[in-house]
Amino acid sequence: MSVSAKDQELSRTMDQLGMRARQASRVLAGASEQQKNRALSAAADSLRQRLPEILAANARDMHEAREHGLSEALLDRLMLDAERVRAMARGLESIVELPDPVGRILAEWTPPNGLCIQRVSVPLGVIGIIYESRPNVTADAGALCLKAGNAVILRGGSESFHSSSAIHACLVYGLEAAGLPGDAIQMVPTTNRDAVGYLLANMTQYLDVLVPRGGKGLVARVEREARVPVLGHLEGICHVYVDATADPALARKIVVNSKMRRTGICGAAETLLLDRRADTALLGDLLDGLIEAGCEIRADQVLRESHPEFPLATEQDWSTEYLAPVISAAMVDGVEGAIKHIRRYGTGHTESVIARDQAIAERFLGAVDSAIVMHNASTQFADGGEFGMGAEVGIATGRLHARGPVGVEQLTSYKYVVRGSGQVRP
Amino acid sequence: MSVSAKDQELSRTMDQLGMRARQASRVLAGASEQQKNRALSAAADSLRQRLPEILAANARDMHEAREHGLSEALLDRLMLDAERVRAMARGLESIVELPDPVGRILAEWTPPNGLCIQRVSVPLGVIGIIYESRPNVTADAGALCLKAGNAVILRGGSESFHSSSAIHACLVYGLEAAGLPGDAIQMVPTTNRDAVGYLLANMTQYLDVLVPRGGKGLVARVEREARVPVLGHLEGICHVYVDATADPALARKIVVNSKMRRTGICGAAETLLLDRRADTALLGDLLDGLIEAGCEIRADQVLRESHPEFPLATEQDWSTEYLAPVISAAMVDGVEGAIKHIRRYGTGHTESVIARDQAIAERFLGAVDSAIVMHNASTQFADGGEFGMGAEVGIATGRLHARGPVGVEQLTSYKYVVRGSGQVRP
Repeated sequence: MSVSAKDQELSRTMDQLGMRARQASRVLAGASEQQKNRALSAAADSLRQRLPEILAANARDMHEAREHGLSEALLDRLMLDAERVRAMARGLESIVELPDPVGRILAEWTPPNGLCIQRVSVPLGVIGIIYESRPNVTADAGALCLKAGNAVILRGGSESFHSSSAIHACLVYGLEAAGLPGDAIQMVPTTNRDAVGYLLANMTQYLDVLVPRGGKGLVARVEREARVPVLGHLEGICHVYVDATADPALARKIVVNSKMRRTGICGAAETLLLDRRADTALLGDLLDGLIEAGCEIRADQVLRESHPEFPLATEQDWSTEYLAPVISAAMVDGVEGAIKHIRRYGTGHTESVIARDQAIAERFLGAVDSAIVMHNASTQFADGGEFGMGAEVGIATGRLHARGPVGVEQLTSYKYVVRGSGQVRP
Repeated sequence: MSVSAKDQELSRTMDQLGMRARQASRVLAGASEQQKNRALSAAADSLRQRLPEILAANARDMHEAREHGLSEALLDRLMLDAERVRAMARGLESIVELPDPVGRILAEWTPPNGLCIQRVSVPLGVIGIIYESRPNVTADAGALCLKAGNAVILRGGSESFHSSSAIHACLVYGLEAAGLPGDAIQMVPTTNRDAVGYLLANMTQYLDVLVPRGGKGLVARVEREARVPVLGHLEGICHVYVDATADPALARKIVVNSKMRRTGICGAAETLLLDRRADTALLGDLLDGLIEAGCEIRADQVLRESHPEFPLATEQDWSTEYLAPVISAAMVDGVEGAIKHIRRYGTGHTESVIARDQAIAERFLGAVDSAIVMHNASTQFADGGEFGMGAEVGIATGRLHARGPVGVEQLTSYKYVVRGSGQVRP
């Protein structure tokens, strides 16, 4: 096929996905809670029933991925086994338990003109989700969009294409079993890499929002090229500030957990800010905790005066999301110094203050303008599940519409329903 | 000056505006309700005290506008007199009365991990407002942004530059009288038309959101070129559907008001949808009402069968925002026909159903996916003031963050404040 014939075929395929999604979104918007939940339960059953097909599809992806020389870390993300598939099914069932976020009366009032005004939650419409290798995102993200009454177009990594297709078939089965249009959850049916560019730039009439899930390269591209609003985050350079008033044992426990529980997630701490006035024993114990857990510490000049064994952090370190057992550490001038450092280098994701002094903690919580600010807790709690939101399609660091975990509630919009009795405007 | 030297000067000027706004936004975010209200009250006083300067500046704009041959309609928008300035001052005072939208606890809960999670409203940050000739937008928009704790960069039409500058000086006086940074409300200090392009494309690090207020040309440009999120609406093609079960007198009153009260506002009706099954007397009376009020009716083929005197509406008419005493009218197949027509031609602004049958009204309110859907009320109520929101910077028809009137509450975002007692994630 010539290049332009290929382009034409791609644009036809993508526009059809878009049109079908828009159609389906109208049906979904009017679907009852029972119907949506029935679709999710049936999809969960289907995941369990089709386990052999899913594992076979995954084996095919794993085989190709090994041939392409994917790293062990990526292979692990891609790999499915019976337990992972069962966890996916349980994930869908946990979404059934969430309250329906659509049709809630968010506010209700009657101004002097006598109109009864309600602000009512409605679905966003059609959501595009672009993700990388984890095939379970297909189930999670598809189910969350469905629960919020949205149609969704999924585009996973090409390396997980067969696994995602097998999982997608279960979701479609669930929709149809509940009498809902299968087109409510669609997958881009090609691994053609140009499909991503098309989703970003040419589908403004079909997509209401895009959610990128993946590494910095993917998210940066989506933020740069997308012609529709994007909910997501580019980087999570999360800070933990340890005040001089911190409880030493609590500080050590939280710092180690924030950094080392899982180093590869966006809520992992990347920079430690230490109060200059803090007791050296407190600091020493805390740094020991990190070292014992296997963490490399890159220190600023001031910290190196007492700890010359640490390598010097460069300017670049303060802006680096390591996603690895490495932390940058700076001495700062109390809570104000911490706020200043975070304003300069933070990415607006999650920051935590460890302090016994309540006034200092409140100053930090008020002045640090991140999606999530914490006191005496690990940054690794930055997660929709831990927040009690059930699940999330990701964490957003933009300021509009949704900040922090993007759960079903954040996948809705609202409209005003106004009931009158013949009012005309004077 | 050479072109590139001019460009450099513009970029320096604009970047400085941006940096100052970002700085000021941090102070504003922490300002108390009292301080913000004091600034608004002092600005209102200042508007009254500086009335002679404001009128003199306006006279200069009016003189230049006449020399440039502006239309009478535009001259009227531009013109200020003592009463209009006093109305502006009262407008600021009415914003004082609104509750502070910042620092509200929007939700609060404790998941099983024991963390106390609060969702707290915070300002958006820095807002850019691009508007056309009405100088009063300077006061309204500046004040609304201030009340919501935001810094704002205002860019009005070049024809109102002197009037807006004089009004802007009063706002800055108010800020400083309340001990707040004057940079919280800045005006682009040049009429250089390239400044708009720079605001749209080159200030992503300084601006959190743009609000365009003006005609379709301006809004379309902002939506096309902006590199930051936009809150606004391109067109308001509002529909009124008259069901066969409508009360005839009520239908006539609402239809005439929706179209003719003020034809130039975005909430004015542009298309009338008439139930095929409706009584011909009902329809005739309603159409007479429009004609008596001076409205031209462009009818579809079916309506022309009974009213051949009306010109035939073309396909283009269904997509036209007349903003004039003209209405397009189509016969539709009941409420389902109306929903179908609106899905095809609507712009998601405001639509109203006139019906006595409650089930029909509810079907319309549920299925029509516009920012505002109304029952038995005039579309001209689509207004933040009429909604009891105090005032608005505009109406938004996007689906993210804010839909409908954009008042102080919609000029905020939120963050999560999480208080723990040493929790680490298992």
